[in-house]
Amino acid sequence: MFKLLKTQGCARLGEFHTVHGVIKTPVFMNVGTQAAIKGGLSSFDLKEIGCQVELSNTYHLTLRPGDEIIRDLGGLHKFMNWDRPILTDSGGFQVFSLAKLRNIKEEGVYFSSHIDGRKLFMGPEESMTIQSNLGSTIAMAFDECVENPAEYSYAKASHERTVRWLERCIKKMRELNASDNAVNPHQMLFGINQGATYADLRIENMKRIAEFDLDGYAIGGLAVGEPTETMYEIIEKVEPFAPKDRPRYLMGVGTPVNILEAVDRGVDFFDCVMPARNARHGHLFTSQGVLNIHNAKYMKDDSPIDPECGCHVCRNFSRAYIRHLFKAGEMLALRLSVMHNLYFYNSLMEKIRESLEKGTFADFKEKNVYILGQRI
Amino acid sequence: MFKLLKTQGCARLGEFHTVHGVIKTPVFMNVGTQAAIKGGLSSFDLKEIGCQVELSNTYHLTLRPGDEIIRDLGGLHKFMNWDRPILTDSGGFQVFSLAKLRNIKEEGVYFSSHIDGRKLFMGPEESMTIQSNLGSTIAMAFDECVENPAEYSYAKASHERTVRWLERCIKKMRELNASDNAVNPHQMLFGINQGATYADLRIENMKRIAEFDLDGYAIGGLAVGEPTETMYEIIEKVEPFAPKDRPRYLMGVGTPVNILEAVDRGVDFFDCVMPARNARHGHLFTSQGVLNIHNAKYMKDDSPIDPECGCHVCRNFSRAYIRHLFKAGEMLALRLSVMHNLYFYNSLMEKIRESLEKGTFADFKEKNVYILGQRI
Repeated sequence: MFKLLKTQGCARLGEFHTVHGVIKTPVFMNVGTQAAIKGGLSSFDLKEIGCQVELSNTYHLTLRPGDEIIRDLGGLHKFMNWDRPILTDSGGFQVFSLAKLRNIKEEGVYFSSHIDGRKLFMGPEESMTIQSNLGSTIAMAFDECVENPAEYSYAKASHERTVRWLERCIKKMRELNASDNAVNPHQMLFGINQGATYADLRIENMKRIAEFDLDGYAIGGLAVGEPTETMYEIIEKVEPFAPKDRPRYLMGVGTPVNILEAVDRGVDFFDCVMPARNARHGHLFTSQGVLNIHNAKYMKDDSPIDPECGCHVCRNFSRAYIRHLFKAGEMLALRLSVMHNLYFYNSLMEKIRESLEKGTFADFKEKNVYILGQRI
Repeated sequence: MFKLLKTQGCARLGEFHTVHGVIKTPVFMNVGTQAAIKGGLSSFDLKEIGCQVELSNTYHLTLRPGDEIIRDLGGLHKFMNWDRPILTDSGGFQVFSLAKLRNIKEEGVYFSSHIDGRKLFMGPEESMTIQSNLGSTIAMAFDECVENPAEYSYAKASHERTVRWLERCIKKMRELNASDNAVNPHQMLFGINQGATYADLRIENMKRIAEFDLDGYAIGGLAVGEPTETMYEIIEKVEPFAPKDRPRYLMGVGTPVNILEAVDRGVDFFDCVMPARNARHGHLFTSQGVLNIHNAKYMKDDSPIDPECGCHVCRNFSRAYIRHLFKAGEMLALRLSVMHNLYFYNSLMEKIRESLEKGTFADFKEKNVYILGQRI
């Protein structure tokens, strides 16, 4: 259940109530694709860095270790020892981006595993069954994520099929939640808006999926190659047709600047692999912009990554130490960097929420949208 | 200052008082070669797993980031944020095992860096200066670690040179500790017994170095290829000549069984990369023997690595989860495994100390010397 607490322009402060606790929005979800966070972070580290929602991947987990194994072990929460909300994506995006030899039919997608080439099939029912076995808090509908740019005719046919798939997802999820051995009988379902970069298709799609009265609505198929301005325009066009009383989730986005711009356009949920991936390359987010820890000037620098940051890493370790760990090839370099970058994201969302609470979001955005994009 | 609290046969329960706190012996030192523990463990994890002494490497740290940089940053304790004792080895062993194009002279060793081929020199004075810059609690004397098997004549000439080097180490360390800008003016020095596998040379060497009244005495040059029984014999032969009122440190040893046998022969300090290295290969120590987590039988096993273990990993994660992390190539697999194995070692030492306290060490050893060597 979503409570809209305050708005400022299109930006929204809210609370999303789930069986695993309340999610304060806007929120950034921390990605643990294979039930673990890159850089060696455990579920305990996630609490340390202020993570509200962990995100895992249906496609990866069904291939390895297998969703039935996770179900038999009591579900994903127990498996990874995490008691707060988990969102699982539907596997749709990974089937289209990772799997090989895809063949899309009305019933679903035939593909080969990127791990061992096994021939597999996933349709709406399979995706719902897997997510039910995982027992996540929020399941995502199975959709086709069309590559950008896409032909208009293809994008139209695809979004219409995605709507038909959504109906099947809803029916299947209802059955699964009602079954006696559901890991999480209160599993929620978010629909996903598609339509490539065509505003009319996006709007038509959002109107159609809004009718199903789902727990939340995602915007998918963006940040996949189109210009950033196009992404912002699509959000602006489609936002008026997204139910006001449901959270909106912009999938796979993005930089701190992208997040500020999208919050300003009415988005509540985010996720992205970028903070962890950048961390592993030594690109660390700070309140003054992005820092490259490999830079020789940090060799003797005993200040923390970001003097304004309150994270475990900034409270305890210096730039000089972290730079040394990178140069020496120590795994601890990655762990500390990922911890810091994810904390930075979670903390940015907290500041955004504070500014919405105080009614100062416009100023906060104005000030940070320039600084946070800088390389220092 | 070493306090011998109790003995049982040759086995000893003691306390070693240092400027960074008291070390309860017998003790296993946790190896952080490059000022970080393999598997992404930080100094906070070291506290979590009950580490008393961290061990870092002079050779590695002088090459990278450079001991003068660490000195300028306040020493190794501050650099890695660890306030308990640190032992640094002298660099001798690494110069002989890692460096290239070695040329051993009376003044010291000329060699090339294994990282970039740079031509370098290290003698007793250089080793002491580097360790003084690092500011460790305990410095090790600079020695030649002779390969086994060695010619008698070579082993004899080498141990005699090592004694001459020790005199120079003592003189230099005294100067460094007295200097105004010593990072740790209370730095202690351990001598190292050498003499290859020749009992007469080992004994002669121990008698000679015992005269210097050092803070502790190590047995070096063992566990480098000789049969295990030879190692035990050497310890037995040399032990009566090691000062009773000083701790004895068996360098680079070993398996849990090796440790039990060596404690039984009067050894107080240990270090070894094996628990961390084995962990990275999925070989996990348990109270019932060594377990290979890759084994398919653990796929759905929701019990902890070792049901009798009280570590963070065993309290919170299952064999099935850790096996999955290995199969999925997640760094967290390594971190959790290293944490567990190091905790196992630290906890084994604690149990050894408890049994010495109670006078039941012989029974404890008898029972575990078989079990701990098993593969389950």
